[in-house]
Amino acid sequence: MSGNLVGERFLLLTFGESHGKCVGAVLDGCPAGLALTEEDVQSELDLRKPGQSIVTTQRREEDKVEIMSGVFDGRTTGAPIMMMIRNADKDSKSYEAINNTPRPGHADLVARVKYGGFNDPRGGGRFSGRITASFVMGGAVAKKLLRQALGVEVVAYSLEIGGIRASGFTLAEAAKNRYSNETRAPTPEAAEQMKRKIVDMRGKGNSLGGVVECVATGVPVGLGEPVFGSLDSDLARIALSIPAVKGVEFGSGFASARMTGLENNDEYFFDGGNIRTRTNNAGGILGGLSNGMPMVYRVAFKPASSIASKQTTVDLRSGKEVDFVVPGRHDPTVVPRAVPVVEGTTALVLADHALRAGMIPPVIGKQ
Amino acid sequence: MSGNLVGERFLLLTFGESHGKCVGAVLDGCPAGLALTEEDVQSELDLRKPGQSIVTTQRREEDKVEIMSGVFDGRTTGAPIMMMIRNADKDSKSYEAINNTPRPGHADLVARVKYGGFNDPRGGGRFSGRITASFVMGGAVAKKLLRQALGVEVVAYSLEIGGIRASGFTLAEAAKNRYSNETRAPTPEAAEQMKRKIVDMRGKGNSLGGVVECVATGVPVGLGEPVFGSLDSDLARIALSIPAVKGVEFGSGFASARMTGLENNDEYFFDGGNIRTRTNNAGGILGGLSNGMPMVYRVAFKPASSIASKQTTVDLRSGKEVDFVVPGRHDPTVVPRAVPVVEGTTALVLADHALRAGMIPPVIGKQ
Amino acid sequence: MSGNLVGERFLLLTFGESHGKCVGAVLDGCPAGLALTEEDVQSELDLRKPGQSIVTTQRREEDKVEIMSGVFDGRTTGAPIMMMIRNADKDSKSYEAINNTPRPGHADLVARVKYGGFNDPRGGGRFSGRITASFVMGGAVAKKLLRQALGVEVVAYSLEIGGIRASGFTLAEAAKNRYSNETRAPTPEAAEQMKRKIVDMRGKGNSLGGVVECVATGVPVGLGEPVFGSLDSDLARIALSIPAVKGVEFGSGFASARMTGLENNDEYFFDGGNIRTRTNNAGGILGGLSNGMPMVYRVAFKPASSIASKQTTVDLRSGKEVDFVVPGRHDPTVVPRAVPVVEGTTALVLADHALRAGMIPPVIGKQ
Amino acid sequence: MSGNLVGERFLLLTFGESHGKCVGAVLDGCPAGLALTEEDVQSELDLRKPGQSIVTTQRREEDKVEIMSGVFDGRTTGAPIMMMIRNADKDSKSYEAINNTPRPGHADLVARVKYGGFNDPRGGGRFSGRITASFVMGGAVAKKLLRQALGVEVVAYSLEIGGIRASGFTLAEAAKNRYSNETRAPTPEAAEQMKRKIVDMRGKGNSLGGVVECVATGVPVGLGEPVFGSLDSDLARIALSIPAVKGVEFGSGFASARMTGLENNDEYFFDGGNIRTRTNNAGGILGGLSNGMPMVYRVAFKPASSIASKQTTVDLRSGKEVDFVVPGRHDPTVVPRAVPVVEGTTALVLADHALRAGMIPPVIGKQ
Repeated sequence: MSGNLVGERFLLLTFGESHGKCVGAVLDGCPAGLALTEEDVQSELDLRKPGQSIVTTQRREEDKVEIMSGVFDGRTTGAPIMMMIRNADKDSKSYEAINNTPRPGHADLVARVKYGGFNDPRGGGRFSGRITASFVMGGAVAKKLLRQALGVEVVAYSLEIGGIRASGFTLAEAAKNRYSNETRAPTPEAAEQMKRKIVDMRGKGNSLGGVVECVATGVPVGLGEPVFGSLDSDLARIALSIPAVKGVEFGSGFASARMTGLENNDEYFFDGGNIRTRTNNAGGILGGLSNGMPMVYRVAFKPASSIASKQTTVDLRSGKEVDFVVPGRHDPTVVPRAVPVVEGTTALVLADHALRAGMIPPVIGKQ
Repeated sequence: MSGNLVGERFLLLTFGESHGKCVGAVLDGCPAGLALTEEDVQSELDLRKPGQSIVTTQRREEDKVEIMSGVFDGRTTGAPIMMMIRNADKDSKSYEAINNTPRPGHADLVARVKYGGFNDPRGGGRFSGRITASFVMGGAVAKKLLRQALGVEVVAYSLEIGGIRASGFTLAEAAKNRYSNETRAPTPEAAEQMKRKIVDMRGKGNSLGGVVECVATGVPVGLGEPVFGSLDSDLARIALSIPAVKGVEFGSGFASARMTGLENNDEYFFDGGNIRTRTNNAGGILGGLSNGMPMVYRVAFKPASSIASKQTTVDLRSGKEVDFVVPGRHDPTVVPRAVPVVEGTTALVLADHALRAGMIPPVIGKQ
Repeated sequence: MSGNLVGERFLLLTFGESHGKCVGAVLDGCPAGLALTEEDVQSELDLRKPGQSIVTTQRREEDKVEIMSGVFDGRTTGAPIMMMIRNADKDSKSYEAINNTPRPGHADLVARVKYGGFNDPRGGGRFSGRITASFVMGGAVAKKLLRQALGVEVVAYSLEIGGIRASGFTLAEAAKNRYSNETRAPTPEAAEQMKRKIVDMRGKGNSLGGVVECVATGVPVGLGEPVFGSLDSDLARIALSIPAVKGVEFGSGFASARMTGLENNDEYFFDGGNIRTRTNNAGGILGGLSNGMPMVYRVAFKPASSIASKQTTVDLRSGKEVDFVVPGRHDPTVVPRAVPVVEGTTALVLADHALRAGMIPPVIGKQ
Repeated sequence: MSGNLVGERFLLLTFGESHGKCVGAVLDGCPAGLALTEEDVQSELDLRKPGQSIVTTQRREEDKVEIMSGVFDGRTTGAPIMMMIRNADKDSKSYEAINNTPRPGHADLVARVKYGGFNDPRGGGRFSGRITASFVMGGAVAKKLLRQALGVEVVAYSLEIGGIRASGFTLAEAAKNRYSNETRAPTPEAAEQMKRKIVDMRGKGNSLGGVVECVATGVPVGLGEPVFGSLDSDLARIALSIPAVKGVEFGSGFASARMTGLENNDEYFFDGGNIRTRTNNAGGILGGLSNGMPMVYRVAFKPASSIASKQTTVDLRSGKEVDFVVPGRHDPTVVPRAVPVVEGTTALVLADHALRAGMIPPVIGKQ
């Protein structure tokens, strides 16, 4: 198959480049009968749109989505849904530099080798973070489908940016707060501190990393296809496909490596008629299957690679090392804009597995 | 597709259960002409065999591999390679208990729900760590193929067990040491400490987690298929399919979330005719593609869920909570036996991507 | 993916060679809870077993199936079902000849080129008709699943052998007669004539082709995934994977090319509460979807390529043309033994599509 | 996966509806470095464009292709290539009729059942022959790639329309003539007769079927992945996905069912240094693999279902049978416009298999 394709039954094939004509995706496998408008997708896209605040890049792109197929009379038809946004505000002059002096931390050089120099280098081309707009498009449909068909809600937020880690919040608070502040933090306090740190680092021509935490509630028991199609396998796979991600962990994650079995095992109890666990170190996933507890995982983002400071790289023409400053306008951290992306990829995986498990029928709604 | 299947061009479909007749796999897509014997596979399988030392379970299984198809006159033919081991030393009496009082930390309950009670519960059935024997079988072929066709070497080791983290070693030392001690540690010192801690914890009826680090050298530039088929996506996906894994990180991983761009970016330099980076925070992967530096990633294992201590669970017959001790013989930590598994899964992914990138031809060797 | 794999949700991965250790398959995606015994599979395998009558090869193979995984307590578990038969009665001495003087009509030469000479040439190796035993294994499970879950019945028969075409029979008669005569003809009269023609041609050291017709009843409306996964696409794909097949047609098929729209269109009418068509030129498939009418298609088999007559071929050692007689024992026509194979492949496709359409749930039966 | 997707390495995902905004496709897996312009695709699309002559529908659609991604500086980049045409000249008023009185021979009713009434019914929606424009788009790229990388040429023509079968022509003549006449016949004589018959039948409000023959030359030995991914399997699969196709046959095809082994087997001989066969009853495919001889197969098209004559159908509102004339403008036969479609689908399959076999590298051309 292709690296541009994800999902088995709820399939997303993405296309487009940072400075080409468009970025988009074909979403295939969406059940027929789901009410869907461009506004449903636009509202999610707006959450990752650049140029929104001081903590993100100052590039402005309208990112206006068009649904080109698969919807008729306001409902999905069961046919592939093609969605795209046109690119604007392109500043492609600088790509000669990218080609000859590859940017540290970027894919410029490896892409050039892999594609024999024929890759589109402008703004990183196919390797740009801009392609995650297509993840959000598909994710917007997935979120609506999951909510309507199963009552599943997906909430992500900036758990940590630049070492500042939010704490002491409930999921309800995080859900309420995350899109009310520029950093997508789950608490106003963390938001304030994160913002200060980002502004400070931007001023220094440097950048920050962070951690996005994502929680899904209402996930029915038994999603996931063992072995290689386990729920955590598929969530990790798609998370690592987001540019700048360097790690993913579920439940107690890397911390569990230092716990004992007695500490880490989640004991069962009856909660009314339901079987639940007292702790949730598993992050809602056991044996690769959802266990009915909230699904919790974290995604680590490296600091943004494009920085306004001087770095050393190689000049492929001269064969010499050169000093180099990445041209253009950049995000001082990708974390805030990645929050809706992680929500989208999570929803894509859950929708795919719900369809695979027969928990969402091929036709929803009634005519 | 199926959760039991992994890979695009170098495909592994696993089958079998912990206490059924066998555990095995069909490996499809191996180039024709590779010299392959049962001994090639057996030597890898022996590294994860139970009953080898005090740090692993005392169950004894011979795990003798049979290659049933796809090899003729000592060479692969290009046809599917079916390999299997027969199960022995089964102690299935206790599965009634598993069915009615699900073990904390295990998939017993979710499997029962997902499969309507028809799953094979004996020893965890399809969810047992025993199925990783099939990953090792496929991995053994992948390792031989990678070594011969590309000079790639894959080395994993127990970086950390029970909070004891090995340090101060070179890759060459790790490669030399890892299979010379029972804990698969990269240094004798760490091995000794880890062993003591494991023996101590076994005595307490408790268990430990840890971290396996895996390094691949000689990986050519440009492996990986952006976006969703990126090298890190596929490595993470398969790592998370190993039972007890709760996290995966590449290069500087979660630590990179607290670094700045200037700290984390790997600057390029000319090393003779080759372009290399001064640091390797990327772990050898940029934009989802191998960049020619050593590929480095870490996999977090939770402490083994089966422990000899009393835990609370639910009794599905009585609807009451009960005290419970997991019957049978257990690994006090899965980490040492997971080391060859991680090497195998890594090799599977690299071989698959090398074939997808056309770096290994469909026929190797000459007749 | 791999050529050895078919299906999306009801997956069959075949393995094995004509004269290797075994022929088998892993069937993945079968719902949990289906009652399944080796006898269920054996009874279908026996229908294609060689050595049964004068119209087939005199090779004798017991073809005793073993189910190695995926079944527990007489029910499918939802895990992969590995099935295999051991090879016996091998006569591999003659493969040197095959290698150096490729048999006309066989894959000997192309396989040798494709696999660089490393393919298993004995008895045709992976290209032997013997591998269709694995189609029958998977088909046996599919038939049982379809019958139980949906009431679908699949009936194939030798419509034509050596130019003798059966006629004037009902589907019920064909179903009753096909396995009561050696030629698998739908009427005793056709069976008698076909048999005479086969015996005559065998005496002349020559062989015959024919046409298998397959009818599936009870197929619910709407199976098939447009465009490329249409029902007829998938049936044709798998039919062409049976050795010796050179054509497939649905409903009025090639004859429709000479009809007018008025003649060929099937007009709708109300049959009680059901909508049916007065004719069935569509063969039960419209727009790639089942339309509720009996599904009818035909598969053309070329005459068996292995014949006892002298033919000319090339000698790869001498670079000269040589006279040549195919050694070994052969089927004078493959058509009778292909009948259960076509039933099996049809059932595989229908079961796969019924699962894809959500018409069969992932768990069937009750515990 | 999805029915809208075909190919393993050279993937086509189609989207769009007859009367929606657009019809298009994403082509993924094309090697980087192929020179490609919109004109390359447009010239193929123009061959199936409606409204070109008296033998096709009088609907006029410009079908102007836009390449939206995957091409940079006139070369493919290795990224997905999104191509689309806007729909115009829509006449959607009549879809109420389609919904309530399903057209005989069309998918109206089955689509309505499958998608719960949410399918786009206008002009057949997703089931319209118009979607084959996307096959031609992908096929145009495939043809260019095959020609440049391997010297493969694909030539299809109307072998037969309305019972008039062309004969006595060479492949070179067919290649020269097919696009010089409106019926796409391989000889001027057949073209003249076919045209008269079509015009006559159009006048009667009726329609005709026919047979497209397709020949590919220059195909290297060994394309095809046994078993289910055999070359004929994949060609048949995609052929049957073209609306109105009811059969496919390779080489001597259905006629081989009436031949003997001695007649049908193709004997080998040395033609200079090359091994060739004296006859080509195999149609260039043995054991599912190309054997180096011209690849020849035929596709049977039923007469166009939309006719201007009165037919009977059911009225879903009244529950009564009604007389019915299909509204709109129609092709009196789909065969001429199907010729470039069959060329395109053939090229798609060959390109996919050439990439799978490693015969086309992932980067072509030099920068």
